[in-house]
Amino acid sequence: MDIVLKPIGFVRTGTPDEEVKNALDKNIVKGFIEVLPEYAEGLKGLEGFSHIIIVAYLHKVPGEARNTLIVKPRRLLRLGFKLEELPELGVFATDSPHRPNPIALTIVEVEKIEKNRIYVRGLDLFDGTPVLDIKPYDKSRAVQGFKVPEWLRVLEERIREKNGMDLTP
Amino acid sequence: MDIVLKPIGFVRTGTPDEEVKNALDKNIVKGFIEVLPEYAEGLKGLEGFSHIIIVAYLHKVPGEARNTLIVKPRRLLRLGFKLEELPELGVFATDSPHRPNPIALTIVEVEKIEKNRIYVRGLDLFDGTPVLDIKPYDKSRAVQGFKVPEWLRVLEERIREKNGMDLTP
Repeated sequence: MDIVLKPIGFVRTGTPDEEVKNALDKNIVKGFIEVLPEYAEGLKGLEGFSHIIIVAYLHKVPGEARNTLIVKPRRLLRLGFKLEELPELGVFATDSPHRPNPIALTIVEVEKIEKNRIYVRGLDLFDGTPVLDIKPYDKSRAVQGFKVPEWLRVLEERIREKNGMDLTP
Repeated sequence: MDIVLKPIGFVRTGTPDEEVKNALDKNIVKGFIEVLPEYAEGLKGLEGFSHIIIVAYLHKVPGEARNTLIVKPRRLLRLGFKLEELPELGVFATDSPHRPNPIALTIVEVEKIEKNRIYVRGLDLFDGTPVLDIKPYDKSRAVQGFKVPEWLRVLEERIREKNGMDLTP
Protein backbone atom coordinates (compact mmCIF):
# COMPACT_ATOMS: atom_id res chain seq x y z
CA MET A 1 0.00 0.00 0.00
CA ASP A 2 1.75 3.13 -1.25
CA ILE A 3 0.72 6.56 -0.06
CA VAL A 4 1.52 9.27 -2.59
CA LEU A 5 1.95 12.89 -1.53
CA LYS A 6 3.09 16.04 -3.27
CA PRO A 7 5.11 18.99 -1.95
CA ILE A 8 3.04 22.09 -1.24
CA GLY A 9 6.21 24.13 -1.01
CA PHE A 10 9.90 24.12 -0.17
CA VAL A 11 12.23 25.30 2.59
CA ARG A 12 14.49 28.16 1.50
CA THR A 13 17.44 29.10 3.65
CA GLY A 14 20.84 30.48 2.81
CA THR A 15 22.34 28.43 5.64
CA PRO A 16 24.54 25.53 4.42
CA ASP A 17 23.47 21.98 5.41
CA GLU A 18 26.46 21.52 7.73
CA GLU A 19 25.52 24.65 9.70
CA VAL A 20 21.87 23.62 9.94
CA LYS A 21 23.03 20.26 11.29
CA ASN A 22 25.25 21.90 13.88
CA ALA A 23 22.71 24.49 14.95
CA LEU A 24 22.01 22.81 18.24
CA ASP A 25 20.40 25.97 19.48
CA LYS A 26 17.54 25.47 17.11
CA ASN A 27 16.32 29.02 17.13
CA ILE A 28 19.13 30.48 15.04
CA VAL A 29 18.51 29.18 11.51
CA LYS A 30 16.31 31.53 9.53
CA GLY A 31 14.69 31.23 6.17
CA PHE A 32 11.29 31.01 4.58
CA ILE A 33 8.78 28.47 3.39
CA GLU A 34 8.00 29.10 -0.22
CA VAL A 35 4.47 27.84 -0.69
CA LEU A 36 3.80 26.95 -4.31
CA PRO A 37 1.61 29.67 -5.87
CA GLU A 38 -1.25 27.25 -6.52
CA TYR A 39 -1.56 26.62 -2.73
CA ALA A 40 -0.96 30.18 -1.51
CA GLU A 41 -4.67 30.78 -0.83
CA GLY A 42 -4.43 28.13 1.89
CA LEU A 43 -2.40 30.56 4.03
CA LYS A 44 -5.43 32.81 4.67
CA GLY A 45 -5.84 33.29 8.43
CA LEU A 46 -2.36 32.04 9.32
CA GLU A 47 -1.16 35.53 10.18
CA GLY A 48 -1.15 36.02 13.95
CA PHE A 49 -0.03 32.53 14.90
CA SER A 50 3.38 33.00 16.52
CA HIS A 51 4.38 29.42 15.67
CA ILE A 52 3.59 26.86 12.98
CA ILE A 53 4.32 23.17 12.56
CA ILE A 54 6.05 22.27 9.31
CA VAL A 55 5.49 18.69 8.13
CA ALA A 56 8.45 18.04 5.85
CA TYR A 57 9.84 15.19 3.81
CA LEU A 58 13.55 14.70 4.51
CA HIS A 59 14.60 14.18 0.93
CA LYS A 60 18.33 13.93 1.68
CA VAL A 61 17.99 10.90 3.94
CA PRO A 62 19.42 7.96 1.95
CA GLY A 63 16.95 5.25 0.97
CA GLU A 64 18.65 2.57 3.06
CA ALA A 65 18.15 4.67 6.24
CA ARG A 66 14.46 3.78 5.94
CA ASN A 67 15.42 0.37 7.29
CA THR A 68 16.83 1.85 10.49
CA LEU A 69 14.83 0.94 13.60
CA ILE A 70 17.39 1.41 16.40
CA VAL A 71 19.52 4.56 16.79
CA LYS A 72 21.69 6.36 19.30
CA PRO A 73 21.07 10.09 19.73
CA ARG A 74 24.42 10.82 18.09
CA ARG A 75 24.09 14.55 17.96
CA LEU A 76 24.85 14.47 21.68
CA LEU A 77 28.41 13.44 20.74
CA ARG A 78 28.99 17.09 19.90
CA LEU A 79 28.12 17.96 23.48
CA GLY A 80 30.89 15.75 24.82
CA PHE A 81 28.99 12.52 25.36
CA LYS A 82 30.77 9.28 24.49
CA LEU A 83 29.08 6.87 22.10
CA GLU A 84 28.94 4.14 24.76
CA GLU A 85 27.12 6.49 27.15
CA LEU A 86 24.22 6.97 24.75
CA PRO A 87 21.15 4.73 24.98
CA GLU A 88 19.98 2.57 22.09
CA LEU A 89 16.52 3.73 21.17
CA GLY A 90 13.82 2.79 18.75
CA VAL A 91 13.40 5.43 16.06
CA PHE A 92 9.80 6.09 17.15
CA ALA A 93 11.12 7.18 20.57
CA THR A 94 13.38 9.76 18.90
CA ASP A 95 13.52 12.56 16.38
CA SER A 96 16.05 10.71 14.21
CA PRO A 97 15.75 11.48 10.48
CA HIS A 98 16.57 7.80 9.91
CA ARG A 99 13.18 6.10 10.14
CA PRO A 100 10.82 4.17 7.85
CA ASN A 101 9.09 7.34 6.59
CA PRO A 102 11.56 10.24 6.85
CA ILE A 103 9.02 12.83 7.96
CA ALA A 104 10.00 15.78 10.15
CA LEU A 105 7.75 17.85 12.38
CA THR A 106 9.49 21.15 12.89
CA ILE A 107 8.00 23.85 15.07
CA VAL A 108 9.20 27.27 13.98
CA GLU A 109 8.56 30.85 14.98
CA VAL A 110 6.85 32.96 12.32
CA GLU A 111 8.49 36.32 11.63
CA LYS A 112 6.18 37.51 8.87
CA ILE A 113 4.09 36.27 5.96
CA GLU A 114 4.45 37.92 2.57
CA LYS A 115 2.30 36.55 -0.22
CA ASN A 116 3.34 32.90 -0.56
CA ARG A 117 6.36 33.17 1.73
CA ILE A 118 6.33 32.41 5.44
CA TYR A 119 9.49 33.85 7.00
CA VAL A 120 10.52 31.76 9.99
CA ARG A 121 13.28 31.17 12.50
CA GLY A 122 14.20 27.94 14.24
CA LEU A 123 14.65 25.78 11.16
CA ASP A 124 16.32 22.38 11.43
CA LEU A 125 15.60 21.59 7.78
CA PHE A 126 17.98 21.82 4.85
CA ASP A 127 17.56 24.25 1.99
CA GLY A 128 15.27 22.72 -0.63
CA THR A 129 13.41 20.36 1.73
CA PRO A 130 9.91 19.59 0.37
CA VAL A 131 7.10 20.70 2.68
CA LEU A 132 4.06 18.41 2.86
CA ASP A 133 1.83 20.39 5.18
CA ILE A 134 1.64 23.39 7.49
CA LYS A 135 -0.41 23.44 10.71
CA PRO A 136 -0.98 26.30 13.12
CA TYR A 137 0.39 25.86 16.64
CA ASP A 138 -2.56 26.31 18.98
CA LYS A 139 -3.42 25.07 22.42
CA SER A 140 -4.44 21.64 21.15
CA ARG A 141 -0.69 21.13 20.52
CA ALA A 142 0.52 22.37 23.88
CA VAL A 143 0.12 19.45 26.27
CA GLN A 144 0.19 20.39 29.94
CA GLY A 145 1.88 18.11 32.44
CA PHE A 146 3.25 15.55 29.96
CA LYS A 147 5.81 13.03 31.23
CA VAL A 148 8.98 11.64 29.65
CA PRO A 149 10.94 8.46 30.47
CA GLU A 150 13.62 8.31 33.13
CA TRP A 151 16.40 7.85 30.51
CA LEU A 152 15.44 11.15 28.89
CA ARG A 153 15.31 12.99 32.22
CA VAL A 154 18.79 11.66 33.02
CA LEU A 155 20.15 12.74 29.61
CA GLU A 156 18.59 16.19 29.93
CA GLU A 157 20.09 16.59 33.38
CA ARG A 158 23.54 15.60 32.12
CA ILE A 159 23.24 17.96 29.14
CA ARG A 160 22.42 20.82 31.48
CA GLU A 161 25.44 19.94 33.63
CA LYS A 162 27.77 19.64 30.64
CA ASN A 163 26.84 22.74 28.78
CA GLY A 164 24.37 24.82 30.64
CA MET A 165 22.20 24.25 27.58
CA ASP A 166 18.66 22.98 27.42
CA LEU A 167 18.31 20.42 24.68
CA THR A 168 16.68 17.11 24.04
CA PRO A 169 18.26 14.32 22.00
CA MET B 1 7.52 15.19 -7.83
CA ASP B 2 5.79 12.35 -6.02
CA ILE B 3 6.70 11.40 -2.47
CA VAL B 4 5.94 7.78 -1.70
CA LEU B 5 5.40 6.60 1.88
CA LYS B 6 4.27 3.35 3.45
CA PRO B 7 2.13 2.72 6.54
CA ILE B 8 4.11 1.60 9.58
CA GLY B 9 0.88 0.57 11.29
CA PHE B 10 -2.83 1.20 11.62
CA VAL B 11 -5.28 2.77 14.04
CA ARG B 12 -7.55 0.21 15.71
CA THR B 13 -10.60 1.40 17.59
CA GLY B 14 -13.98 -0.15 18.13
CA THR B 15 -15.55 3.31 17.97
CA PRO B 16 -17.66 3.90 14.81
CA ASP B 17 -16.54 6.75 12.49
CA GLU B 18 -19.61 8.86 13.31
CA GLU B 19 -18.80 8.73 17.03
CA VAL B 20 -15.15 9.59 16.44
CA LYS B 21 -16.30 12.58 14.41
CA ASN B 22 -18.68 13.72 17.14
CA ALA B 23 -16.22 13.20 19.99
CA LEU B 24 -15.66 16.89 20.52
CA ASP B 25 -14.15 16.12 23.89
CA LYS B 26 -11.20 14.51 22.20
CA ASN B 27 -10.00 12.57 25.17
CA ILE B 28 -12.75 9.96 25.11
CA VAL B 29 -11.97 7.80 22.06
CA LYS B 30 -9.75 4.88 22.95
CA GLY B 31 -7.98 2.30 20.87
CA PHE B 32 -4.53 1.19 19.91
CA ILE B 33 -1.94 1.71 17.24
CA GLU B 34 -1.04 -1.63 15.75
CA VAL B 35 2.54 -1.20 14.57
CA LEU B 36 3.37 -3.69 11.84
CA PRO B 37 5.56 -6.47 13.28
CA GLU B 38 8.51 -5.55 11.04
CA TYR B 39 8.66 -2.09 12.67
CA ALA B 40 7.97 -3.12 16.28
CA GLU B 41 11.63 -2.80 17.29
CA GLY B 42 11.34 0.93 16.60
CA LEU B 43 9.18 1.27 19.74
CA LYS B 44 12.13 0.61 22.09
CA GLY B 45 12.39 3.44 24.62
CA LEU B 46 8.90 4.80 23.95
CA GLU B 47 7.60 3.52 27.27
CA GLY B 48 7.44 6.34 29.80
CA PHE B 49 6.34 9.08 27.42
CA SER B 50 2.87 10.07 28.59
CA HIS B 51 1.97 11.39 25.12
CA ILE B 52 2.91 10.63 21.53
CA ILE B 53 2.26 12.35 18.22
CA ILE B 54 0.69 10.14 15.57
CA VAL B 55 1.36 11.21 11.98
CA ALA B 56 -1.49 9.63 10.05
CA TYR B 57 -2.75 9.52 6.49
CA LEU B 58 -6.47 10.32 6.34
CA HIS B 59 -7.38 7.63 3.85
CA LYS B 60 -11.12 8.33 3.93
CA VAL B 61 -10.80 11.91 2.72
CA PRO B 62 -12.10 11.91 -0.87
CA GLY B 63 -9.54 12.68 -3.56
CA GLU B 64 -11.27 15.88 -4.67
CA ALA B 65 -10.91 17.32 -1.13
CA ARG B 66 -7.21 17.65 -1.89
CA ASN B 67 -8.16 20.67 -3.99
CA THR B 68 -9.71 22.45 -1.00
CA LEU B 69 -7.82 25.57 0.07
CA ILE B 70 -10.50 27.55 1.94
CA VAL B 71 -12.70 26.05 4.68
CA LYS B 72 -15.00 27.06 7.49
CA PRO B 73 -14.50 25.32 10.84
CA ARG B 74 -17.78 23.48 10.36
CA ARG B 75 -17.52 21.28 13.41
CA LEU B 76 -18.42 24.38 15.41
CA LEU B 77 -21.91 24.11 13.88
CA ARG B 78 -22.55 21.35 16.39
CA LEU B 79 -21.86 23.81 19.17
CA GLY B 80 -24.61 26.12 17.99
CA PHE B 81 -22.66 28.43 15.69
CA LYS B 82 -24.33 29.51 12.48
CA LEU B 83 -22.50 28.93 9.20
CA GLU B 84 -22.40 32.68 8.46
CA GLU B 85 -20.74 33.34 11.81
CA LEU B 86 -17.75 31.18 10.98
CA PRO B 87 -14.64 32.68 9.38
CA GLU B 88 -13.31 31.54 6.01
CA LEU B 89 -9.84 30.20 6.59
CA GLY B 90 -7.04 28.79 4.54
CA VAL B 91 -6.58 25.07 5.21
CA PHE B 92 -3.04 25.69 6.51
CA ALA B 93 -4.50 27.86 9.28
CA THR B 94 -6.75 24.98 10.40
CA ASP B 95 -6.86 21.32 11.28
CA SER B 96 -9.26 20.53 8.43
CA PRO B 97 -8.84 17.02 6.97
CA HIS B 98 -9.55 18.61 3.58
CA ARG B 99 -6.13 19.82 2.44
CA PRO B 100 -3.66 19.08 -0.35
CA ASN B 101 -1.94 16.28 1.61
CA PRO B 102 -4.48 14.81 4.05
CA ILE B 103 -2.04 14.31 6.91
CA ALA B 104 -3.16 14.43 10.54
CA LEU B 105 -1.03 15.15 13.59
CA THR B 106 -2.86 13.67 16.54
CA ILE B 107 -1.50 13.96 20.07
CA VAL B 108 -2.74 11.11 22.22
CA GLU B 109 -2.20 9.91 25.75
CA VAL B 110 -0.43 6.56 26.06
CA GLU B 111 -2.11 4.07 28.37
CA LYS B 112 0.28 1.16 27.89
CA ILE B 113 2.49 -0.49 25.31
CA GLU B 114 2.24 -4.23 24.75
CA LYS B 115 4.52 -5.72 22.11
CA ASN B 116 3.57 -3.94 18.86
CA ARG B 117 0.45 -2.27 20.28
CA ILE B 118 0.35 1.21 21.75
CA TYR B 119 -2.88 1.64 23.69
CA VAL B 120 -3.98 5.25 23.62
CA ARG B 121 -6.84 7.62 24.46
CA GLY B 122 -7.73 10.84 22.74
CA LEU B 123 -8.04 9.50 19.19
CA ASP B 124 -9.65 11.61 16.49
CA LEU B 125 -8.77 9.08 13.79
CA PHE B 126 -11.04 6.49 12.24
CA ASP B 127 -10.56 2.76 12.64
CA GLY B 128 -8.14 1.51 9.99
CA THR B 129 -6.33 4.83 9.43
CA PRO B 130 -2.77 4.21 8.16
CA VAL B 131 -0.07 5.54 10.50
CA LEU B 132 3.00 7.05 8.82
CA ASP B 133 5.10 7.88 11.85
CA ILE B 134 5.15 8.10 15.64
CA LYS B 135 7.06 10.77 17.57
CA PRO B 136 7.48 11.16 21.31
CA TYR B 137 6.00 14.27 22.89
CA ASP B 138 8.83 16.01 24.69
CA LYS B 139 9.59 19.58 25.66
CA SER B 140 10.73 20.48 22.13
CA ARG B 141 7.01 20.16 21.21
CA ALA B 142 5.65 22.22 24.09
CA VAL B 143 6.02 25.84 23.05
CA GLN B 144 5.78 28.34 25.87
CA GLY B 145 4.05 31.66 25.34
CA PHE B 146 2.84 31.04 21.79
CA LYS B 147 0.27 33.44 20.33
CA VAL B 148 -2.81 32.88 18.18
CA PRO B 149 -4.73 35.30 15.94
CA GLU B 150 -7.51 37.51 17.19
CA TRP B 151 -10.16 35.56 15.22
CA LEU B 152 -9.22 32.38 17.10
CA ARG B 153 -9.27 34.09 20.50
CA VAL B 154 -12.75 35.43 19.70
CA LEU B 155 -13.99 31.99 18.62
CA GLU B 156 -12.53 30.33 21.71
CA GLU B 157 -14.18 32.91 23.95
CA ARG B 158 -17.55 32.38 22.27
CA ILE B 159 -17.18 28.60 22.55
CA ARG B 160 -16.54 28.93 26.26
CA GLU B 161 -19.62 31.13 26.61
CA LYS B 162 -21.83 28.80 24.59
CA ASN B 163 -20.90 25.53 26.15
CA GLY B 164 -18.53 25.95 29.03
CA MET B 165 -16.24 23.77 26.93
CA ASP B 166 -12.67 24.44 25.91
CA LEU B 167 -12.19 23.63 22.25
CA THR B 168 -10.49 25.03 19.20
CA PRO B 169 -11.90 24.91 15.67
